[in-house]
Amino acid sequence: MNLDALYSELTLKTKSKLALLVMDGLGDIATKKQGYLTPLEAAKTPNLDALSRDSAQGRMIPVAPGITPGSGPGHLALFGYDPIEFQVGRGVIEALGLGIELKAGDVAARANFCTIDAKGIVTDRRAGRIETEVCEELCALLSSKIKKIGDCQVIIKAGKGHRFVVLFRGKGIEGPLTDADPHSEGKPIPAVEPVDKKSTKAAKAAKLVADFYAVALPLLAKKSPANGFLMRGIAHQPEIASFEERYLLKPACLAVYPMYKGLAQLVGMTKIEGPQTIAEQFQAYLDNYDKYDFFFIHYKYTDMYGEDGNFEAKKKAIEDFDAALPILFKKAPHVLAITGDHSTPCAVHGHSWHPQPVLLNAEWSGSDKLERFTETGANQGSLGVMEAKYLIRHMQANAKMFDKFGA
Amino acid sequence: MNLDALYSELTLKTKSKLALLVMDGLGDIATKKQGYLTPLEAAKTPNLDALSRDSAQGRMIPVAPGITPGSGPGHLALFGYDPIEFQVGRGVIEALGLGIELKAGDVAARANFCTIDAKGIVTDRRAGRIETEVCEELCALLSSKIKKIGDCQVIIKAGKGHRFVVLFRGKGIEGPLTDADPHSEGKPIPAVEPVDKKSTKAAKAAKLVADFYAVALPLLAKKSPANGFLMRGIAHQPEIASFEERYLLKPACLAVYPMYKGLAQLVGMTKIEGPQTIAEQFQAYLDNYDKYDFFFIHYKYTDMYGEDGNFEAKKKAIEDFDAALPILFKKAPHVLAITGDHSTPCAVHGHSWHPQPVLLNAEWSGSDKLERFTETGANQGSLGVMEAKYLIRHMQANAKMFDKFGA
Repeated sequence: MNLDALYSELTLKTKSKLALLVMDGLGDIATKKQGYLTPLEAAKTPNLDALSRDSAQGRMIPVAPGITPGSGPGHLALFGYDPIEFQVGRGVIEALGLGIELKAGDVAARANFCTIDAKGIVTDRRAGRIETEVCEELCALLSSKIKKIGDCQVIIKAGKGHRFVVLFRGKGIEGPLTDADPHSEGKPIPAVEPVDKKSTKAAKAAKLVADFYAVALPLLAKKSPANGFLMRGIAHQPEIASFEERYLLKPACLAVYPMYKGLAQLVGMTKIEGPQTIAEQFQAYLDNYDKYDFFFIHYKYTDMYGEDGNFEAKKKAIEDFDAALPILFKKAPHVLAITGDHSTPCAVHGHSWHPQPVLLNAEWSGSDKLERFTETGANQGSLGVMEAKYLIRHMQANAKMFDKFGA
Repeated sequence: MNLDALYSELTLKTKSKLALLVMDGLGDIATKKQGYLTPLEAAKTPNLDALSRDSAQGRMIPVAPGITPGSGPGHLALFGYDPIEFQVGRGVIEALGLGIELKAGDVAARANFCTIDAKGIVTDRRAGRIETEVCEELCALLSSKIKKIGDCQVIIKAGKGHRFVVLFRGKGIEGPLTDADPHSEGKPIPAVEPVDKKSTKAAKAAKLVADFYAVALPLLAKKSPANGFLMRGIAHQPEIASFEERYLLKPACLAVYPMYKGLAQLVGMTKIEGPQTIAEQFQAYLDNYDKYDFFFIHYKYTDMYGEDGNFEAKKKAIEDFDAALPILFKKAPHVLAITGDHSTPCAVHGHSWHPQPVLLNAEWSGSDKLERFTETGANQGSLGVMEAKYLIRHMQANAKMFDKFGA
């Protein structure tokens, strides 16, 4: 019997409120250079400390041992979807994040403007990081000139800075395709190819992308530094059971950045728009407490400063998050999980494979008698080192959402 | 390659004696109200403490993260059978526990007398908890009047209090069926249905149950308060490889309660009847030391008091168990495991999903350098948080029962 099916069979509806607080890239490693402390360990976190005493802790493997996840797999695991089974192209996620309503079969690509020389060699992969307004103008130009390629509709939408999204809508196309991106400067933009060579649908999509380049590049020829563009993560929207269907929980997303909104939307969460700071996000949680059963609250800055290798800033980001927690506690959820979607250690300057720490607080979470929420403490927690996809099951269990299995 | 097949291929016969001591529902959670101690932590356990120093510890997930098991799945996991793969109906377990020799294809139901009003509404699901003697009289009455339904034999056997078992023996029948139990008072007894709507064998079994009700209820009409009965866990005996076949260990069961005897019998353990107290069970272990290789010793009271939410009594039950241990140590087994089949935290007043602690003592278990056997200590043990079904493999390994895998 499939484990998801078993969980589903045992699931009961309750009136519990569940909240998943994601400090993106929270996990870190203690190094000599950092005085053997992680940012979480170095940070002053009185509110997390107080919570810790009555919580269970553990560490979570986002995908599989040693695998460094992108934000997509990281979040899908937190949402309880096996990230190896449910692979979602970055293009799809970006498109969703920009508010494009995807239809089944749409093929989406994450794109960004770049600079190419006369021979078509990429000289700057980010076109000097042009302003968002320039990007919007260029996207408007492309949109006005390119409505269709063959029998497929083309939708272009600007993102932040040099980033945009291209969507192909039509029959008989699918992803994934290889990237139209050399991934380093000094090389030409490679042609895309179907990942599955046998897929005629992917072959058609690859042809679409090539044709799109053929008409789009000439339109940009004089728009230096943004006279070219790269396309990545070209994929179609997979079929995916909604969060509400899987868990009998009505979910809301409180995220600021498009990517995380997109991931939440992919599993059918309702986006609550407006709040920009973590304090505002927690306030929006309070305001919407009665309308939803599950709140996904996303905090970006821990990841951002981890990527920069900025220990002090990551530590400060954690302290800011901690300082805002009392707002949430005005109406504490019945089940609260605080974690990251993966680790972004300052020493690594990027995402990593290290299991992220997790704290689970509920009436029956039990206490692991840990005075603080830290990586080293979490190693001693009762949750052990588990796959991140099981967090939602622990949350459901603590919400008393599972009937007993067997007599 | 199937993992069970690999273990089987590597298994060697040795002269080791293995003992599995199950304190039912042992695991608990530390809560503020309990001074952040579990019953195991609060109990005075000098014998377990002494053992702990030379033991490995860990925690075990009975079924899957977040899933609360009944005693059936809990014990099957301890016996090394994946509880999701091997699902056994409660009726089968109860029938085995009452000493009924099941034949392949028999369909068994766990039943109990109840009180119904003139309209057939259940007013007391336990018929005022009638005495065992009354139950035996009523079962004798039903047995004398109902020998067959259609072409199937009917076997009725009284259990303790208001409980009994009904067994249907005949061709072309199978379970599982839904319960003939409204699971709350104020409702009529529902008709049973096949869980698998396409099974004609289950449909025949459902008809048998309906016909059984039609003849049995009138016989009880004037037997208030036991003028009705409920049937649950209606299922047939699944095919299951015997414990001895799987592990090359000749197993004996030392349990007091029918359910656990039934579970042991299901996997082919020999029941040693007689002992009623844990001291007597340990003495019976000594008396039978030479006759078996594996001893399953079951202790019920930790679960019972956990269900009652009685912290002091659960603590005392652990102390009583500890006090009896020196009897076992007169002839210590080569491999000793002490654990629960699941957690039954006092704060939860019932079974739960929390991993139970496990202690493994053997010449080569290694020491985790823990001064006591506790939930919090077990979190730091070398066994980690593992699936309970692997405990038997650790026991076999410590008995040097596995050949090296690969050169």
